[in-house]
Amino acid sequence: MERLEQQMEFIMEVDQLKNIYRQTYITDGSRKENDSEHSWHLALMAMLLSEHANEEIDALKVMSMLLIHDIVEIDAGDTYAYDEEGKASQREREEKAADRIFNILPKDQAKKCIELWHEFEDNQTAEARFATALDHCQPTLLNHRAGGKSWEEHGIKLSQVLKRNEETPLGSESIWSYQRAVIEENVNKGKIIRDC
Amino acid sequence: MERLEQQMEFIMEVDQLKNIYRQTYITDGSRKENDSEHSWHLALMAMLLSEHANEEIDALKVMSMLLIHDIVEIDAGDTYAYDEEGKASQREREEKAADRIFNILPKDQAKKCIELWHEFEDNQTAEARFATALDHCQPTLLNHRAGGKSWEEHGIKLSQVLKRNEETPLGSESIWSYQRAVIEENVNKGKIIRDC
Repeated sequence: MERLEQQMEFIMEVDQLKNIYRQTYITDGSRKENDSEHSWHLALMAMLLSEHANEEIDALKVMSMLLIHDIVEIDAGDTYAYDEEGKASQREREEKAADRIFNILPKDQAKKCIELWHEFEDNQTAEARFATALDHCQPTLLNHRAGGKSWEEHGIKLSQVLKRNEETPLGSESIWSYQRAVIEENVNKGKIIRDC
Repeated sequence: MERLEQQMEFIMEVDQLKNIYRQTYITDGSRKENDSEHSWHLALMAMLLSEHANEEIDALKVMSMLLIHDIVEIDAGDTYAYDEEGKASQREREEKAADRIFNILPKDQAKKCIELWHEFEDNQTAEARFATALDHCQPTLLNHRAGGKSWEEHGIKLSQVLKRNEETPLGSESIWSYQRAVIEENVNKGKIIRDC
């Protein structure tokens, strides 16, 4: 029973992910998306799009990775993809958060979750590469559907979007090719600034 | 590419799940939870609690089931667990919704998702029983953390909570036993009305 209590304590602690807001709007443009919604969306994408991964992947591992990949933001906050200053201290803040939050779980599960989160962050395995591709593709799709609002608010340039997505084709060439066309459409509409 | 376009169309369509609100409050009591947040929470619970299932289960199947189990509510709306009138027409409304929404996907995936959703609804397999146990347990935990607000708002009685949870022990005796203690605590505090 103590084990189940620790697990339930963690499950209630991470409810706070529902209050961590991102810079991306949901498709109707009415409000920004939070991390728990983003994580659900990505896990669902992993379930439906795994056939498009460049390499053979373990779908259960990708889904698990995506369900926990943003939990550190409960303590560390969301670092916007184009916030270069925030990104300098991001890893340190997130490591500290991972240590506190995942250690609410029983030791064996804490260890597994921290390893899985590191695997995602390090992006050196087939599963991490595919999870990263989805994580970088989903905001493009949402921004596009929401009329490019978030790109416009932040004055985002094509070079920034391309740099952000350097690793996307490593996970899935076909998803990147789809996403690339969406980006081009938004450059043509003036939603993303053409600077290259 | 046409296949990927259909998949992406579905993935954007179901973004609307982020606007379907439930009667349960998130743990800080600040607002109600939406279906996409609820689905993320349940899939994470499946990932961490599968050792507590009464029977051997396929965790990937349970997680997939939970990620899609509420998608029908985009058209059919959320039917509150204690809304007897709404429940009378629920299945019909949801069948229609499943037919429209899942059929945005390529045929093979639409068929699989509709089957998986039916499996969840029919609750006749080990995976469905465990998914149902989580689906019925999570609101109790959230309501408890949020100070019993949702039970109080609706004047919920113990007999209703027990009836709602008739199937919970079929999925997991140990989760039910944990949840039963939480329910009892809230009956003692007067958050749930003792009527049996």
